[in-house]
Parts: sequence; C-alpha cells; structure tokens
Amino acid sequence: MTINQLLQKLESTSPILQANFGIERESLRVDRQGQLAQTPHPSCLGARSFHPYIQTDFCEFQMELITPVAKSTTEARRLLGAITDVTGRSISQDEVLWPLSMPPRIKAQEIQVAQLENEFERHYRNYLAEKYGTKLQAISGIHYNMELGKDLVEALFQESDQTDMIAFKNALYLKLAQNYLRYRWVITYLFGAAPIAEQGFFDQEVPEPVRSFRNSDHGYVNKEEIQVSFDNLEDYVSDIETYIANGDLIAEKEFYSAVRFRGQKANRSFLDKGITYLEFRNFDLNPFERIGISQTTMDTVHLLILAFLWLDSPENVDQVLAQGHALNEKIALSHPLEPLPDQAMTETKDIIKALDQLVQHFGLGDYHQDLVKQVKATFADPKQTLSAQLLPYIKDKSLADFALNKALAYQDYDWTAHYALKGYEEMELSTQMLLFDAIQKGINFDILDEQDQFLKLWHKDHVEYVKNGNMTSKDNYVVPLAMANKTVTKKILADAGFPVPAGDEFTSLEQGLAYYPLIKNKQIVVKPKSTNFGLGISIFQEPASLENYQKALEIAFAEDTAVLVEEFIPGTEYRFFILDGHCEAVLLRVAANVVGDGKHTIRELVAHKNANPLRGHDHRSPLEIIALGDIEQLMLAQQGYTPDDILPDGEKVNLRRNSNISTGGDSIDVTETMDSSYQELAAAMATSMGAWACGVDLIIPDETQIASKENPHCTCIELNFNPSMYMHTYCAEGPGQAITPKILDKLFPELVALKHQN
Amino acid sequence: MTINQLLQKLESTSPILQANFGIERESLRVDRQGQLAQTPHPSCLGARSFHPYIQTDFCEFQMELITPVAKSTTEARRLLGAITDVTGRSISQDEVLWPLSMPPRIKAQEIQVAQLENEFERHYRNYLAEKYGTKLQAISGIHYNMELGKDLVEALFQESDQTDMIAFKNALYLKLAQNYLRYRWVITYLFGAAPIAEQGFFDQEVPEPVRSFRNSDHGYVNKEEIQVSFDNLEDYVSDIETYIANGDLIAEKEFYSAVRFRGQKANRSFLDKGITYLEFRNFDLNPFERIGISQTTMDTVHLLILAFLWLDSPENVDQVLAQGHALNEKIALSHPLEPLPDQAMTETKDIIKALDQLVQHFGLGDYHQDLVKQVKATFADPKQTLSAQLLPYIKDKSLADFALNKALAYQDYDWTAHYALKGYEEMELSTQMLLFDAIQKGINFDILDEQDQFLKLWHKDHVEYVKNGNMTSKDNYVVPLAMANKTVTKKILADAGFPVPAGDEFTSLEQGLAYYPLIKNKQIVVKPKSTNFGLGISIFQEPASLENYQKALEIAFAEDTAVLVEEFIPGTEYRFFILDGHCEAVLLRVAANVVGDGKHTIRELVAHKNANPLRGHDHRSPLEIIALGDIEQLMLAQQGYTPDDILPDGEKVNLRRNSNISTGGDSIDVTETMDSSYQELAAAMATSMGAWACGVDLIIPDETQIASKENPHCTCIELNFNPSMYMHTYCAEGPGQAITPKILDKLFPELVALKHQN
Repeated sequence: MTINQLLQKLESTSPILQANFGIERESLRVDRQGQLAQTPHPSCLGARSFHPYIQTDFCEFQMELITPVAKSTTEARRLLGAITDVTGRSISQDEVLWPLSMPPRIKAQEIQVAQLENEFERHYRNYLAEKYGTKLQAISGIHYNMELGKDLVEALFQESDQTDMIAFKNALYLKLAQNYLRYRWVITYLFGAAPIAEQGFFDQEVPEPVRSFRNSDHGYVNKEEIQVSFDNLEDYVSDIETYIANGDLIAEKEFYSAVRFRGQKANRSFLDKGITYLEFRNFDLNPFERIGISQTTMDTVHLLILAFLWLDSPENVDQVLAQGHALNEKIALSHPLEPLPDQAMTETKDIIKALDQLVQHFGLGDYHQDLVKQVKATFADPKQTLSAQLLPYIKDKSLADFALNKALAYQDYDWTAHYALKGYEEMELSTQMLLFDAIQKGINFDILDEQDQFLKLWHKDHVEYVKNGNMTSKDNYVVPLAMANKTVTKKILADAGFPVPAGDEFTSLEQGLAYYPLIKNKQIVVKPKSTNFGLGISIFQEPASLENYQKALEIAFAEDTAVLVEEFIPGTEYRFFILDGHCEAVLLRVAANVVGDGKHTIRELVAHKNANPLRGHDHRSPLEIIALGDIEQLMLAQQGYTPDDILPDGEKVNLRRNSNISTGGDSIDVTETMDSSYQELAAAMATSMGAWACGVDLIIPDETQIASKENPHCTCIELNFNPSMYMHTYCAEGPGQAITPKILDKLFPELVALKHQN
Repeated sequence: MTINQLLQKLESTSPILQANFGIERESLRVDRQGQLAQTPHPSCLGARSFHPYIQTDFCEFQMELITPVAKSTTEARRLLGAITDVTGRSISQDEVLWPLSMPPRIKAQEIQVAQLENEFERHYRNYLAEKYGTKLQAISGIHYNMELGKDLVEALFQESDQTDMIAFKNALYLKLAQNYLRYRWVITYLFGAAPIAEQGFFDQEVPEPVRSFRNSDHGYVNKEEIQVSFDNLEDYVSDIETYIANGDLIAEKEFYSAVRFRGQKANRSFLDKGITYLEFRNFDLNPFERIGISQTTMDTVHLLILAFLWLDSPENVDQVLAQGHALNEKIALSHPLEPLPDQAMTETKDIIKALDQLVQHFGLGDYHQDLVKQVKATFADPKQTLSAQLLPYIKDKSLADFALNKALAYQDYDWTAHYALKGYEEMELSTQMLLFDAIQKGINFDILDEQDQFLKLWHKDHVEYVKNGNMTSKDNYVVPLAMANKTVTKKILADAGFPVPAGDEFTSLEQGLAYYPLIKNKQIVVKPKSTNFGLGISIFQEPASLENYQKALEIAFAEDTAVLVEEFIPGTEYRFFILDGHCEAVLLRVAANVVGDGKHTIRELVAHKNANPLRGHDHRSPLEIIALGDIEQLMLAQQGYTPDDILPDGEKVNLRRNSNISTGGDSIDVTETMDSSYQELAAAMATSMGAWACGVDLIIPDETQIASKENPHCTCIELNFNPSMYMHTYCAEGPGQAITPKILDKLFPELVALKHQN
C-alpha cells in the first residue's frame, strides 16, 4: 500500500495533526543605525559551548535562537517568543536584531566569524568563509523542524503490513522530503521575503525585486557539482559520504538543502537507527513578525507537509526533483507580483486537492479550512504573498529603513514589562524571572506544570526541580514545615538565642484568659496561629482590659483552633531575603501613599504614581495600581482630605493602613543602607533554622543601633519559606537586587565556572 | 526583707505555681516469680553511655527512668508514663518492674553491679558495694526535681533590694533546702511506703511494720560521721570538698541527703554560677501507681515546697536540722498507724498555716485547696497515710505477693495498645511509634507542637526535626512538592522510563472532550487532578459513550479546575514503602470483609473480627472497627445477605467497596511474599524522583510475573510523600514490618555504631 492509501484508511478521528515542532531562527545583531554590530556575543549569555537556546551561527554577530521541542506550533512560537525576549534584553541596548533574511549593507571585512571555543567549529567557519564568501554566510533564515506524532505514525504502521517501524518511518520521511523538494516553490512563493539585496551584497547585477534571493541559487547553496540523490536513503547517505571522502564537502552539515533528515549524529545511522524528524530550511525571516515567523505560516506549512505526505511519490525521483529545483529557481527570482508559471499552476491543483482531501477526511475545522482557503487565494493572487507585501517599503532598492524601524520597535517591545517573560505572563513573576535567567544562562528548562509554577531545569545529567521560584532541593523537607508553624519557629529561634516576641499559644478561651495576669500591663498582639489574609488579629498598643482581651481571643478563635498572644513589638518591619546563609536584599514596604507638590490634586498624584510601568494588577507586575476606592477615600477623609484636594508640597498621605504591595504599597530597597549587622543577624537566624531560601521579618525600632546576638536591637516576628523574590528586584524606590540569577548559580555552580569560556 | 516578706509583697496574680519539674524513678527488674532478674540490661535500649531517659542505677537490674524537664507536674508524669511504657516493652516479657522501694528477697551475691562502659562508674559502684553493702544499694525510690519558675523568681527579685540574681536564687534555694530538711518528716509521714523489708534484707532484727525503712537511717545514708552543714552555701560546698579530700567520700554525689543542690558539674560552681534547681530524694515508690508517684503527691509536694519557702528560716540551722533529722527518724520507724509525736503536731500548725496563707494570698483554686485539706486530714489521721494503706497487704511480714501482682498488672497494661505510646494517644500513630523508638534508642526528644506532630530530636549537637513521623531533613524540599502534583510525577517517572498510566490533563471541558477520540475504545478513569477524599472519580471499565464521558468530566470539574483522564489499569494495588532507596514493606489493603465458618452469623463474625485489639476508632489504632451501618447492610443486601444470616464456611463477603483501612478494611503485610523484582522496581521509582521516604502505589495484574524496567508488568499510579507507617507495622494479617526504628537509625547513624556498647 502507498502512504496515501494508509492515510485514507485511518479513521477520521486519528490524530493527523499530532506532531512535534522546533524552530531555529538566525538574526543579525546590528546597531541602532542599522550597521552590523562589531561587538562580541553578549557575555551575559551562557557559553556557546553548551547553550541550548542562544547560539551564533556563522558570524559573531549572527545570533541563532533555538527552541526546545514543542508539542504544537503555538507552543513552539511561544518558546521562540520567550527566547527572543531574553535575547532582546541580553544584547546591548544599543543593538537590535535585523528582521530580514538579507543583511544590511555590509563590507566583507566587517564579518567576523563566530569566536567559538570549539576548534572544529572555528575551522569550519573559516573554511565556509573561504569557500562561499562571508557575505553569503550572513544571510539568515528560519529552520522549521517537525516530527510526525507518535500515535499518528503508530496508526499508519498498524494499517500497513510493515513489521519494521524504523524502516516504515524512514519511508514516511523520505517521501515527505521528496515531495517537499519537489514542491518547495510553494514555500518560496507564499513565504519568500528576501526581495532585495542591499547595495554591495552581490558583486554582479541582479534583477530586483524578486521573491527570495535566499531561496534561489543566489542564496547559500552548495556548489553546483554537489548533487545528492533523494531517490532512496542509502543513496542519500552514500552520496554525501562520497563528497566528503573526496573533499568536496568538509562535513555532512555542509550539505545545504531545503530539507534535511535529522535525528542521528551521522547520516549512516539513519539506515539502522532511523530518521527522527525533518528540518525544513527554506524559510525567510518574516519582518512583520517579531519572532520571524507567524502562526498562520507555521500552521499552513504543517498542512502543506501533510499534503506532501498525501500526494503520490514522484517516479524518477531525482529527475522530478531537478525539475522542482528549476521551477523554484524561476519562482524565487520572479517579481513578487508575477503570476505563477503554468507548470506551477498545474501543480497547485494537485496540492489543493490534497489539502481539501486532508481537511475532508480528517474533519479539520474552520481554522484549518481557512488556512487552505488562504493558500488557494494566494496561489491565484500574488499580491497576497509575503514578498508582495514588502514591495511598498522598498525605497531606492533598499529595505534598510523599514527593517531598522521594525527592529527598533521589536526591541522596544522586548524592553516593556521587563520584569516579565513574554508569553508567560500568567505565571508568577518570580518564576518568570527565573525562567528568563535560566534561558539567558543556557540552562535547559521544561515547564512541568504551569499552574503550579513547577519547573524542571537541567544541564547535562544534572537535573533540578524548582517550584515557585525558590522551592528547591537545596532546602530540606522539614525546615519549611517548621517555618510554617509559628510556635515551632519561635521555639527553635529562642532555643538558639535569637530574639522573638514573648508570648504563648492557647487552644481554648480559658487557657488564653488565664494568661491575662502576665500580659495585662503590656502591649500585645492577639492572633490566630495561622494568619491567613491577616484575619482575626488584634493589636493593643495600650494594655488591654480583660473584657477587650477576651473579645480579641474570641475573634482569633473564630479563625483557628489555636491562638497566639504575643508582646507587641514597636518599630519598623523589614524583610531580609536570605539565601544560602547570606543576606541578599533588605526591603521596606510602606502603605499606599502619595506625596504632595503643592500643585496637583491627590487624584492626579495617584494617576502619576500609577503611570510607573511597574504598576499593574493582580500580582503580574511588581507593584499594584493604587486604587481610589472606598477604603482609600475613607482613609483620606480620616486625614481631612478628598481626592480632589491639592496636597501641600512635601506632605505625605497614606491611602491604606497596611503596607502590602498588593494594595498599592511601595517597596523600598534598603539593602545598601541597612547596617550589615542586621543583615548578618538575619542570616544567622535563617541558618540556625537550617533554611536555604528564607525571608526573615525583623522589627527594628532604631536602625542606627548596631545589632549583635547578645544585643539584637530587633525582634524576629516571622520566618517565611518560599519568600517572594520579585519584590526585592523591582522596587518603587531603591536600586533593587537581583536574586533569581543567584538561585540558578547556586543550583548549577558548574555553569558559573564555565561562564568565562566561549 | 525576708523571703516570706517578698512573697507577701507579690501580687495575687503572680505565677506562684510556675516551676519546672523532672522525675527520676528507680525500679528493679524481677522475673515473673518475683526474683531479681539475672539478665543484662536490655540490649534493645540505647547504650547507657548516652541514654538520657533509661539508665541503670547501682545494679545491672536496677533501672532508672529519667524524665526531661517539664513545665508542670502533669507533664512530668506524662513523660514518666511514656518512658515507663517504653521500659515495660523493652525488658523481656518474662520480666516486670518491682513496684516497691524495698527489694524482694535477695541474696547479696545475686546483686551484680551495673555493667557500664564508663570505667569510673564501674569503679564507683564497686566502691559503694563494698562500703555500704550491695543489698542497701538495691533500695529504689523517686527523686523529685524542681526549679522555681523564671517569672516567679524575677518577680521576687524585683521586690527585693538585691542586685545579684545568682546570689538571690542561691538564697532562695538554700532556704528551701533548710526547711525541707527540717520538715522532711512530713514527706516520710505522708508518702513513706517502705513498711517492711523482705526476709534476709536486714542482718539484724528490725521492728516492722514501719512507715519507711528507706527514709530512716536503715536506708542508704552516709556513714554517721558525714555531717554536712546547710547553714550557708560556702560551708555546704567546703564540707563536702573536705570529706572528699580526706577520702571519707569518693565523689560529691556520694553525699546522700534528702535534698541536694543541682545545676553545676561541681558544687563549688554553685557559688559563682548559681544553683539551678533542687533534687528531693526521699520519695518511696508508690506501688499503687504504675509510674511510682501520683498526681496528688506531685502537687501536694509542690505546695509543701512553696510552704517551706514561705515559712521562716530556722535560726541555728545545723542544730534545727539535726533535730529535724531525729524527728524524721522517729516518724520513719514508727508503726504506720501511730499518731504523730507532739513535736511534729506542733510543727504541723506552722505548716498548715503557711499552706493556708499561700492559698489565700495567691487565690489558689479548688484543686489546691482540696490538696491542703487532705494534708490536714492526714496529719490528724494516720490511716490516710500511704504506709497505712499498705498494711492490709502485708502477709507474713512480706509484701511480695502484693508487689508481684501489681507488677504483673502494670506490665500487662504496658502491653495493651502496644502500637501506642501511653499518655500520647491523641497524637498520630506513626508519631507515637517514632517517639517510642526514640525513647528506646535514647534519642533526646521535645514535642515542639503536639497538634502538628512536630518533634525535635537530638543526640549531642546533632539536631533533627521530624513532622508526621517521616517528614525529615533527609528529603529535599521540592521532591514532595513534585509528588503532590500527579501530572508532574507522571512526567518525571515517564521521562525516567517507568510505567505510568497513559493520559492527559485538561483545564476545560472542551479540552477534555477533544481527547475523546484517543480514549473512546479504552478503559479509562476520569478524576479531578487533586483527589481529596476520592470525590469526583469515574471509572469506565467498559469504554465510555461520549455522553457519559462528558458527564464524568463535568463531575470531575466540579471538584477541581484541572481534570486527569487516564487509562484504567486493571490489577491489584499494592503500597510499597520505600526508605532511602530500599523497599521496607509491601502492603495489600482489602475492603472490610468477613469470612464464614458455616456456624456464625455475619453479625457475630464482625463482632469477632472487631475483638482484635488492633481495631479501634478514628485512626488512633492501626485498624478500624468494622461497622454494620447502612452502607455495609446495603452492600450485604446486594450480595443477598442480611447481618443475621449464617455465612457458609469459607465464603467471604465484602462489607464495603473501597479498600480503605479507615472504613474497616484489612491490611495484609505481603513483604515476604512479594517478589523482590517489584520491590526493587518500586525503590527505583522513588529514587528517580529523588525521594527518601516514599509510598509507591503499584497496580500489579499478575504477581507471578517477574518485573523489570523494560517489562515492568505493573503500573505506578501514585507516589505518596509522608507515607503512612503504622499500617505496615500493625496489620490484620502478616507479620508486619518495623519502619520507625529505621527512620531513626538513618537520621542518627552515629547511634547505630554506639549500639553495641554499654
């Protein structure tokens, strides 16, 4: 049976669209004037010797962004979007990524080969430079990798009478590759986006504009004498081996083709171990897309690939493929508005028929039906091709201005919401920040559970799991459990000689009342043992009457079966972020407030403060928008103000009593001003608990006093496991402290050592 | 000001009763015939070189049980009760603890000194044996340790004009000791319980019965020439030092007194570093109490001690104390029913007055008032003394039968509910078991939070925290978090090549429905992602119609925002308990059931099964009582039975569908029959997660198949952090496997090495 027949035998509910995808995108670093960057690859990125996501291709300034394997085109683009975000903020703010396949105006001598550590790789690039010329190597593009879904292949295999799965898959991929090469003009026609070459790129005159120089023989192609057969896999393998043996090619990867077989280290292994996936290499960068390829392109190509599987195999493969090559050359070098040549129009009928049959047989829905309609429409109307859409932007045979404007706009976008990871904004901020750093450092990542903020990170065989940004293997199991229990925490700290509020825990009203004599002259706090949302807390800054004390107990007992009565500690509360025995940051949080300037109303001051890009809603930004709702207005009224009053110069009004960030408070990074004696004391507390990542809340009445274990001049009111990190990094005031990179450095110390290599 | 005046100046709400307590109890091991045990100290107990709770005193068979410091008399007795429980089940089941101070009939040559590792200690005991005689050393008793409360002492100090707290406390304790010795006859009178000596104990004739041989000069007292002054602390210290210098005493602890100062290694240190607490040594074992001292005795003595603080200091201390010694001697050797001599009656007035004033001044409640009333009544009526209560049991000048009966009854009691720790039955079973083992092994413990099952364990400087029995520092923080998330767990296991149910997770009905084609011909389970209480689960052993599948999704989505659809795995479910990479136990749980014998009704069979002492209510016993409620009766009806039907021989009926222990199911220990290949595979799964303590749930369709990674013949449906331990140890069928001792051995490997020393 033919593959087409197998496909037709599948049930309509078979997972025809099941596949894995990966995208590689090359893009040149240029400066803000559109000149090739002469700077080295950013040193803040993990070394290229191991970085799985951000490499350089041929040149030092030619970045290559590589996604991990994704289960859908959407996910692949999402991953590429995140890697792009990291790349955009890792390169200098004076640099942008060139959005076109064809480079800006360049001189050959400007092109420096990538300064890689690996000697073979450097040698290889020098060889390519000499053989093909450096300018050619600067052409960039997108490689679209695809693996047919496991269940889909299994279903086809079951329908067949084959017994060897590896051979069966090889046959599928061979057919796919054959038809892809045969019909590669379709990709060139629909998605070609290299209509011009900037002045000086070509030594000779070339017709312009075209659809795609890159996809023509003007692009980087092997020398004409390199002819590899796709008739069968054995020939493919041995043809390339022969070229290498003869010195016509230096390595298997020097064979440039619109499609390559992938999945084994050496081609010969395909024969017994099998092809795993295909690499489609003929996609020009789409400058209208920040990541270089659109969702509809990805999905249209997916359908086309399936159509190529559906269509009959060519007979006389190499002959037909040669014809396909010629047709592609013609279409690639045609004016974008030129209609398809007759030969191509004839082939569109088969292709459209295959697409329609696929949609019909497998009951594909509106989205895919619309994609097919668009393909049909574009076949008939060249104005709808990508290259045609670029025509209006060509000025004086140049796309430089257009390209630079796009690049600058995309760079600006990367720098907005710089606390977030583009595409992952629904995850917790601290996890977004950690993912950003992981991608930057070149640590492999997989999001095991997005809702749970559960990550798998690894470098070679070293695997770490991280939840909520800092719940890691570096902490042991029982210490966070101890920190979750206030009574246990206080006992442990007190036993170790650290200052905690005096007090006791009670499990009944009677017990609580019996304590009254010991606290009747003191400032106290009465609270439920587990204070969720701050409910049920009573604070007596004046000693409490027995009656009020009882009321406070009752209020607390309504929230929990255990209640704590502690001395009230006056002073200012600070959060110390302790990591691995060292204080990394100290934060002061103050209630939502504005400070007057004698000119503006409170309403205007609030609006102005809310304009800070760090302020947003619902914990997806480091600070919250300050509201002017009932609570805030009541608070203002209690201070004698309405929102429309002008606030005197220098006068501060609080809009909330509590200092939570979530109700519009300010976070103030005081790391550099907080005396180190407090930082060391807080670190010692975390260490005595045995905690690796810990938020220590200290009340400090007078910061000017030097703290010591014997005379702490502070009290620890709480230890927090899984402490927030973003609030220390992106603050309303103060420089902010980076913490997530340190988490990763400590999880993967081996990478810190590698950092200085290239 | 005198101490009495300071007390009178305190507010009535002062914490007069605040104090720390510790109890030491000596008790002889005897066999079930009442003969001294000739066996060594139990080897299952941690070595005496470090054991904080269970030691031997003079003789190898003379056990000494020592509580840690407690904040109340109730807590001290609770701790002693637990240590007694452990002791009772650590000695041979052929042995019991002699409940009297005076030993059973013994021959001197039977008495072997304690075979301790410490050379000085062995030498010391041999010296004592020679000097005082071994029989005397076999007398046992209770030492009552007490430290006045910190806030109480602080309050008294504040009222005084003293500036040196150490000197102030020394003065308090010196006064206390003086009055205690002066009035020690009170303790002898009220609580003496050594009325006879068994035949052969004394070489000479002695009058019998008396109140307390132990508290007379017939007990173990120093030689007459040892006279230490209590006039002032300096004299106390130097008198003892002089005796040691002269060789009249070999060590400071050889000074026997009804009261000793404690808290420093050497007496001289009391002078500058201070006395911390007092040791009252004159309490005979109370044979009517399993732990040797009653709650009312503890609390009465507490009040008496406070009265001794209240009463004036003696003038001419040593002279008054000598008179007190003589009075005590007289009262100790009087017949139990003899009224107090006049001198004593006179002193009772002062004592009762002091007690009344204490009660009045500090507003002590009914409980303490009743204690004082009882003291008064007993002063007037010797029949109410403890020694008088023993009179009826003396037969032929012997208490041997009485003592042996008590000992056997107490031993029986220690062996009931042997899965629990007496006094701590409200804690979770696994924690009770861990505490039992910790006490047995000699690991220090402190319950930091009883409701939270939070323990602190330590040996020397090595501290471990344990929650819920096996949440320890040996697990890292993130692995249990991974195990709590079924999706993450499945991904990690699947990535590592272990067999998990195929399936997927959905966060919307649409997503779930789109999955239907892939599962429509399969047996599936639809369940909420977090299955609390087993709600919302649908099992389709026949493939589901789309309609029913949708209903199942809706049911699951009512319980959680994420739903799992997995293949249904047929087979039997087993729980594998993995610890540190090794499988310690395998458990099969089956639904509540009875098996017929052709004679008894189902009701009778249930009653018989419920008679198993392991069955109780509410998770405080390893198995649950099987109910015959509506659910069970419905289940019976569905099988055609009522509770009053006779069940045919060999016929099994289930009373519940689910196999939970909590609804009366049986736990069956199959560790020894489950093929090791499954045990190793389960252990490998836990190890690949990185878990130290883990419960692995495997479905095994056919146990007779050998499992391997490549052909597992089983599926892992869940990994459990904090897995239950008690259910593996105390089973309805099968031997049961001890797990908690292994937890401790792994937390404290240094103790395993020490185990074979003595």
